[in-house]
Amino acid sequence: MSLLAVGTVAFDTIETPFGRAERILGGSATYITLAARFFADTVRLNAVVGSDFPEAHVDLLRARGIDLNGLVRDGDGETFFWAGRYHYDLNQRDTLATHLNVLATFEPDLPASYRDSRIVCLGNLDPTVQMQVLDQVDAPELVVLDTMNYWIENTPDALRTVLERVDVLIINDAEARELSGEPNLVRAARLIRDMGPDTLVIKKGEHGALLFAGETVFSAPAYPLEDIHDPTGAGDTFLGGFAGHLARTGTTDPEAMKEAVVMGSALASFVVEAFGPEQLLHLPAEALEQRVRAFYQLSAIPEGLALLSE
Amino acid sequence: MSLLAVGTVAFDTIETPFGRAERILGGSATYITLAARFFADTVRLNAVVGSDFPEAHVDLLRARGIDLNGLVRDGDGETFFWAGRYHYDLNQRDTLATHLNVLATFEPDLPASYRDSRIVCLGNLDPTVQMQVLDQVDAPELVVLDTMNYWIENTPDALRTVLERVDVLIINDAEARELSGEPNLVRAARLIRDMGPDTLVIKKGEHGALLFAGETVFSAPAYPLEDIHDPTGAGDTFLGGFAGHLARTGTTDPEAMKEAVVMGSALASFVVEAFGPEQLLHLPAEALEQRVRAFYQLSAIPEGLALLSE
Repeated sequence: MSLLAVGTVAFDTIETPFGRAERILGGSATYITLAARFFADTVRLNAVVGSDFPEAHVDLLRARGIDLNGLVRDGDGETFFWAGRYHYDLNQRDTLATHLNVLATFEPDLPASYRDSRIVCLGNLDPTVQMQVLDQVDAPELVVLDTMNYWIENTPDALRTVLERVDVLIINDAEARELSGEPNLVRAARLIRDMGPDTLVIKKGEHGALLFAGETVFSAPAYPLEDIHDPTGAGDTFLGGFAGHLARTGTTDPEAMKEAVVMGSALASFVVEAFGPEQLLHLPAEALEQRVRAFYQLSAIPEGLALLSE
Repeated sequence: MSLLAVGTVAFDTIETPFGRAERILGGSATYITLAARFFADTVRLNAVVGSDFPEAHVDLLRARGIDLNGLVRDGDGETFFWAGRYHYDLNQRDTLATHLNVLATFEPDLPASYRDSRIVCLGNLDPTVQMQVLDQVDAPELVVLDTMNYWIENTPDALRTVLERVDVLIINDAEARELSGEPNLVRAARLIRDMGPDTLVIKKGEHGALLFAGETVFSAPAYPLEDIHDPTGAGDTFLGGFAGHLARTGTTDPEAMKEAVVMGSALASFVVEAFGPEQLLHLPAEALEQRVRAFYQLSAIPEGLALLSE
């Protein structure tokens, strides 16, 4: 199935206790498409960049087979810029700068060739913009959405409106608690699914991910990593891997969703091992497959666990 | 294999957003033994109670088949008392009162019949007392230890000394980070295992548990619960279920350890559904077995996940 990702293409400046990277390629649409292209043949990107965005970055995405007909260049401004600093405990980060630049006036206008996209991935953006995208897609099979605390707090009505049209919501545990107003994640999941999304994935960072799909609840572990150099983009990579796997298999039942969670988790576990999307650009398929097999090892309960009555 | 649990038998006063329970039966040795007795035939308890401890509680433990030859009554004082209040987010609690009472002068003196115990469970106590217990056991097959931030901070040397004689350390993620001085749990695990314990279990509450045993890393999910009424005793119940399963199977290899983590998790998931050890007193074996089966459902990655090369 064809896959469309709408989000940001950005410059990121990232500081972690392990180093610093200045104005490197970033943005939700970058990570989502670079992750999805491991699985899906047709990966379409819709985003805006400014006059300062180098052609070399465009070439780099094109070389990975990503359809860039929807990559808009706005010559009147600069590319979206984000700077952040991670603490020694990488679960905590400070945003040092957010310059919306050309993103401030971005209104998605999908190329005609994108309108038949089957899986639509809406990266973290103003929910009004996410809605504008949906209005331009003919009949998506699956709409996958990411959001963040900023939109939950500042545009709750717009977010609720778009959620009614979403099939899969992928957020982290803090966001799930905030969106639902409920600290218990099982209750939070029920409340959130009542808002629209049939399927909910709650990302828990180092603790893995929870999938609620149909009657299914699935708990995926996180791959235990010793060296996390930069968590930037891990969530978007998860989303891209998740949606990409579904696009590849052409199925969206709960069993396929479980597989998609594992694929997203495996891919995200690589991204955090280097700064920026470096790993997504160069990762061999064999390495990804090996890590997926490690997920089985990590989570398999021995068969035939002797029960009390035996 | 025979199992010995040394720890506290206590009165607990517990407040949660869901209710209040006053001076109910509690203590680490209570939870550990009541959990272990689901699996192990020979479960021995060593702890001290005061003059105020009712015979009805003693009868209740005896009726569950627990060997109480090591339950010492100190007529000169009152039973250890703890009072705590849990917040709406049950991960947070305030200790309202800790009255050591007879525990302040407790020096374990094991009955001769306990000295051949094969699995020794050292509940959260002063590490010097934990060491005194070990000195009185002839040749334990497996020593399992719990501790807490208080001992990590206040008696680090005594804790290090006893850790050298421990086979399995079971602590939570915050304790693992504090003990190792390392926020990354994989690195923390390596540092802690270098202190003595071959096997380490890191409990992560609602996020499940991580097992490091030999070359094995295993991630067990937590059972997704909507109604958590009282987290008190969950960790001790986990330990009792874990050690009890190993006592029953008579094996301590990494595969058995994985099973033990699932058994401990399943049993702990019941305990938190009611105040105090209520569930451990009345839980039918069938209910426990059903929950263990739910753990398979919850964590099984579909077999034959289509990889990229297929």
